Amino acid sequence: MSTEKLLHYRQQLGTELDRVLDFWLKYSHDTQYGGFFNCIGKDGKIYDDLKYVWLQGRQVWMYCRLYRTMERFHKPEILQAAKSGGEFLRRFARVSFSGSPWKCAFCLTRDGKALKVQRTIFSECFYVMAMDELARVTGDKDMQVEAAQMMDQLVHWVRVDPSGLGRPQLPGDSQVCNMAVPMMLLCLVQQLTEGRDGKEVDKYKEVGSWCVKQILQHLQRGGTAILESVSVEGKELPGCQGRLQNPGHALEAGWFLLQYGVENGDPELQRTAVDKFMEVPFLTGWDTEHGGLFYFLDVDGYCPTQLEWSMKLWWPHCEALIAYLMAYNQYKEPALLERFSQVYDYTFSHFSDAENGEWFGYLTQQGNVTLDFKGGPFKGFFHVPRCLYMCEKILESILEKQDV
Amino acid sequence: MSTEKLLHYRQQLGTELDRVLDFWLKYSHDTQYGGFFNCIGKDGKIYDDLKYVWLQGRQVWMYCRLYRTMERFHKPEILQAAKSGGEFLRRFARVSFSGSPWKCAFCLTRDGKALKVQRTIFSECFYVMAMDELARVTGDKDMQVEAAQMMDQLVHWVRVDPSGLGRPQLPGDSQVCNMAVPMMLLCLVQQLTEGRDGKEVDKYKEVGSWCVKQILQHLQRGGTAILESVSVEGKELPGCQGRLQNPGHALEAGWFLLQYGVENGDPELQRTAVDKFMEVPFLTGWDTEHGGLFYFLDVDGYCPTQLEWSMKLWWPHCEALIAYLMAYNQYKEPALLERFSQVYDYTFSHFSDAENGEWFGYLTQQGNVTLDFKGGPFKGFFHVPRCLYMCEKILESILEKQDV
Repeated sequence: MSTEKLLHYRQQLGTELDRVLDFWLKYSHDTQYGGFFNCIGKDGKIYDDLKYVWLQGRQVWMYCRLYRTMERFHKPEILQAAKSGGEFLRRFARVSFSGSPWKCAFCLTRDGKALKVQRTIFSECFYVMAMDELARVTGDKDMQVEAAQMMDQLVHWVRVDPSGLGRPQLPGDSQVCNMAVPMMLLCLVQQLTEGRDGKEVDKYKEVGSWCVKQILQHLQRGGTAILESVSVEGKELPGCQGRLQNPGHALEAGWFLLQYGVENGDPELQRTAVDKFMEVPFLTGWDTEHGGLFYFLDVDGYCPTQLEWSMKLWWPHCEALIAYLMAYNQYKEPALLERFSQVYDYTFSHFSDAENGEWFGYLTQQGNVTLDFKGGPFKGFFHVPRCLYMCEKILESILEKQDV
Repeated sequence: MSTEKLLHYRQQLGTELDRVLDFWLKYSHDTQYGGFFNCIGKDGKIYDDLKYVWLQGRQVWMYCRLYRTMERFHKPEILQAAKSGGEFLRRFARVSFSGSPWKCAFCLTRDGKALKVQRTIFSECFYVMAMDELARVTGDKDMQVEAAQMMDQLVHWVRVDPSGLGRPQLPGDSQVCNMAVPMMLLCLVQQLTEGRDGKEVDKYKEVGSWCVKQILQHLQRGGTAILESVSVEGKELPGCQGRLQNPGHALEAGWFLLQYGVENGDPELQRTAVDKFMEVPFLTGWDTEHGGLFYFLDVDGYCPTQLEWSMKLWWPHCEALIAYLMAYNQYKEPALLERFSQVYDYTFSHFSDAENGEWFGYLTQQGNVTLDFKGGPFKGFFHVPRCLYMCEKILESILEKQDV
């Protein structure tokens, strides 16, 4: 592929990132109560004022990351918005729920009252990301300490004792390892250690390598399938749960592993990341009839029981773009850039909204928009800008090496 | 509409009921552990052996009801299957979870170990239906007492103190009345009082009229909308939750209310049931472009956040068929039979599987099968046979009065 093509991608991704950022700066800020509106219609209208902690944390993180690492986003209004979101989170996200001071709500009212609590670790994970990144841009050591303390609690819940999460232990409930858990922890390890060294970082090394081992357990059936849930011993589980595949999630794990493999000088892990966590889910998950990645599949070809299994969601496509561009940057194999192009063409022609900005999130199998909002309970300022930001950064690195 | 047409419907519904029953008799019985397989593929293959308590209870109820009230189903094999399901439920459904001996699991392993518990009342409701109907066919007074005792617990959870359900009280969590709760309790009141009198029945009278009042609170906006969730004071709630409409659910409430209105000699309630709980959701919920009833809609025309909002599910169509045929039987207005015909044509041409029997459950908005199993975590031997059974009964009553 020509350098012109790469330059074209970089230009288009950069413009799209500007447009997406503008959308959220314009519509999502709650200047009255702080934090961000999450439920935003196709043209920017707020259709619900609930605040989802996952999305509040992710938006803080994304603003800070853009502010800190891209010169054109180093603007006071972006920092100010991140700080406002961070204050809202610190004031309201945590609930005195299960005896632990670290448990966070899943959903808050506009003015910060807890409405729902999940019995999982994800609200807390995005809280850690927000606090650590905010500490990096503000220099506030308190926030860094808070992130580290919550991380300790997360590791305790995951590896020692989950009882503080509030799930009852039931006799038929065998312990299941969902790929999301080690993926999120690995993401946090990378967040908390980036550019740091010394004792405070060393303690995360072991956690990181534990996460990688856990993620690799999801490669099953002689390396021909990534399964979303396995037993704690790394064995396949019976039934629908055991057969479930989530191609977008596997692709996301793919670039997490590749990044980790590069940072830790592990060429075997890098190759596994690409060959197994990118190629396998891509070949399984791509809809050869209508294009795009399926949301869920059953490894034995049964129909998944998730009603949305055949829909095309925005975020698996974001993850695929990051994965293949990162893989190409590492190996320079043209086939990897071809994959990137294939996903790119589908993504930009189906999800991006030329009229009002931002991306649609939910398409039918045939590729028609079926839920037309830009923000919702699970779609915020995160997967789209993270994808555009990371792809722009990777393209810069590729083009730099080509000495353009 | 001609008598011939009604005779044709009766014949077709009867044949379909026989075919549907055959499917479940053939494929769903677990002769090793008792109870029923729930996850059954399009051609009868078991694709998961988990057992869902809602569906176990519903299948027991349906078998008993057919056995008790239709001569052609008064067969030992049907009674035997119902008893096996009942035994499985009595042995395994209840969990020692929240201090109450009545809390039931949502999902069990094949051999009956509790796997998931919902923080709602529905597993328990279907347990009551199963036990009471089983008591009626077997004459087992113990089971009847068990059903009544669990009913007392349900009423306590709903009307006095929900804390035994295990939901944490959160500061932002205003008390919400979901229509499902009074609907299910009303259904149980009708189950527990049918054909009985005396003191044991009197105590349910007040519960029944409370349920009706609660359901009527969901008629909002000057009688132009049925909203799925309202405040306990019967006011509209803010946001997506407050605007949510579930047309199939409203139609089901419609025939519950009509039946109650007929049994209690309340003509005003009967008319409200038809004009408000059938016509309003039908006119809102029918897809004039592709046919069929939408699953969810937002009363203000925003896009619902449920990914499956535009899908066509089998059960709303089952409920609409019962509703309109019952309404026609009551009022003999040709327009009501026209509605029945419209739903009937869509339903039989889209859901019924001529090849392998039973019905598909999940179609795209355009009407194509997108999940092809016959049984799944929320689809069992219930809505389809209840619809066919009730419609056949109602048609018999209509034709009898016509003296055919």
